[in-house]
Amino acid sequence: MLRTRILHQHWIAALACLCVFFAPLVSAQSGVLPSWNERAAKKAVVDFVHRVTTEGGPDFVPPAERIATFDNDGTLWIEQPLYVQLRFAIDRVKALAPEHPEWKSTQPFKAALEDDYKTLGASGEKGLMSLLMATHAGMTSDEFERIVSDWLGSVRHPRFQQAYTNCVYQPMLELLAYLRANGFKTYIVSGGGVEFMRAFAEQVYGIPPEQVIGSTLRTQFELRGDKPAITRLPALDFLDDKEGKPVAIERIIGRRPIAAFGNSDGDLQMLQWTAAGPGARFMLIVHHDDAEREFAYDRTSAMGRLDKALDEAQAKGWVVVSMKDDWNTIFRFTR
Amino acid sequence: MLRTRILHQHWIAALACLCVFFAPLVSAQSGVLPSWNERAAKKAVVDFVHRVTTEGGPDFVPPAERIATFDNDGTLWIEQPLYVQLRFAIDRVKALAPEHPEWKSTQPFKAALEDDYKTLGASGEKGLMSLLMATHAGMTSDEFERIVSDWLGSVRHPRFQQAYTNCVYQPMLELLAYLRANGFKTYIVSGGGVEFMRAFAEQVYGIPPEQVIGSTLRTQFELRGDKPAITRLPALDFLDDKEGKPVAIERIIGRRPIAAFGNSDGDLQMLQWTAAGPGARFMLIVHHDDAEREFAYDRTSAMGRLDKALDEAQAKGWVVVSMKDDWNTIFRFTR
Repeated sequence: MLRTRILHQHWIAALACLCVFFAPLVSAQSGVLPSWNERAAKKAVVDFVHRVTTEGGPDFVPPAERIATFDNDGTLWIEQPLYVQLRFAIDRVKALAPEHPEWKSTQPFKAALEDDYKTLGASGEKGLMSLLMATHAGMTSDEFERIVSDWLGSVRHPRFQQAYTNCVYQPMLELLAYLRANGFKTYIVSGGGVEFMRAFAEQVYGIPPEQVIGSTLRTQFELRGDKPAITRLPALDFLDDKEGKPVAIERIIGRRPIAAFGNSDGDLQMLQWTAAGPGARFMLIVHHDDAEREFAYDRTSAMGRLDKALDEAQAKGWVVVSMKDDWNTIFRFTR
Repeated sequence: MLRTRILHQHWIAALACLCVFFAPLVSAQSGVLPSWNERAAKKAVVDFVHRVTTEGGPDFVPPAERIATFDNDGTLWIEQPLYVQLRFAIDRVKALAPEHPEWKSTQPFKAALEDDYKTLGASGEKGLMSLLMATHAGMTSDEFERIVSDWLGSVRHPRFQQAYTNCVYQPMLELLAYLRANGFKTYIVSGGGVEFMRAFAEQVYGIPPEQVIGSTLRTQFELRGDKPAITRLPALDFLDDKEGKPVAIERIIGRRPIAAFGNSDGDLQMLQWTAAGPGARFMLIVHHDDAEREFAYDRTSAMGRLDKALDEAQAKGWVVVSMKDDWNTIFRFTR
């Protein structure tokens, strides 16, 4: 009896040792990130998280400093064949067209009404900006959020016939949850409009409004009688792209991320800024190389061009995820 | 024996009931907010927190939406006889003067060098702005934070002979901690510079950098060789005062606060914006009426003028704290 109990205790001790020893290995191979194949990219993520969360280890980072920033379009959700927010702007032009008969003969509105993306693209930054201003301004913040929510609930992706809020990358959802479970604070830092993203980020990504950073229009506080309102003006306040991303991170978060995730040249400066900090760092680029399950594009794409950032990732050893090889699932609806 | 046990159980049940019943009362009267006198202001705070945290109650607010915003100068720390950041700018002018011999004969620099606050004030917004730009720009964000930290460690308040980081209001420190213990996320929303405040906000107030919102200079991302840096430019990006406060809250937090705390007309719009939301709301103004222990000023003060906001607080029933009557302690060093 005593001998049995001692044996039993030995067993428990031995098991405990084994568990501690193999815990990172076990979690890497089974529980965590199930949509990620067992390849170098997944191993790099799990190793990094293990290092920065190991108390007493040389790379330990206190939870308050575990800031991870994610681009949105093409990194967390689909950006082909058209940025979702651009599709929204085009749909808004169509919805508002009855009030603007002049749009039928004015570019870029004419092109938007006719789904003529080539002419729309040729209208350049100035053209796109006028499209955005005509569709994103002139209402209060609350009204705009309702318009976006209603639209997201009603449209479908042209190829997948799914709501855009379903066209989010399942492996990235798992990555967000995995990082948060390890004490990270996850932020979106995107060229997209901040209020546009806030309409779905909490529900879809589990990212609260105060952790969404994006481009902004000028807004104005005013009293309508006794009732205060914040109105959206047709003027760009801040473009949160390229050099704008580290600038916004420093201004709004005030800490340098220790991990950053992107998919295009618009994310390069955020990755450079993250990489240049002290201690353990993690930089990852999602490479869209799966035409069959999603889209394949990089160096010459109009949406989400990945050229310089791909060169720099390869030169500096940042993780480049092949959607084709590293992800066994892309969307939840195809699993 | 059985009877004893039943009696014992009754006692426990009775005690449990009493505890639940009296819990708010007990905490209001002893444990929490010890530097607040047992008056209407303290009762209003405790009642509000009790209402929004009571699950199933009519005023319950989920933790994610418990946003509380605090002005800094005059609300959390001292702002007399001179805004601390203005004192910093003047000291920087003195420190940098050897490199700028022209300042000896140029206003407002001459006034700053001579501690001639009257002339300095008369130089108006334009003068003050040129003083700020000359002292707050031209370095990286990291360098600026070091300059501020070093300065805060070396100077003393002229009257109290204490570091400015000690000249923080003990009752407000208790209030911040009390709100956080009840699931609130506490933010600073101040006219002061965001990087200036971040140099001490975490250590002094327990408020992390990403919860500090303030005025900003333009900044620029640049690569110095291979090393990225964010440089501060001599141009105002955003003035986080008056109408700017709700604008910044909406842009950066993306949720309307349910509680807001200020002390001057610069906070009025933040309080109005907070008050106009649905559900339970809490608006509080710190009234500096204690010349003996701190300073007494309101309607005609150059720093922290409280005039319109005092009228509106009285008209709308917002809580007005009398520092003299509501606080038994002002600073930790005088307790």
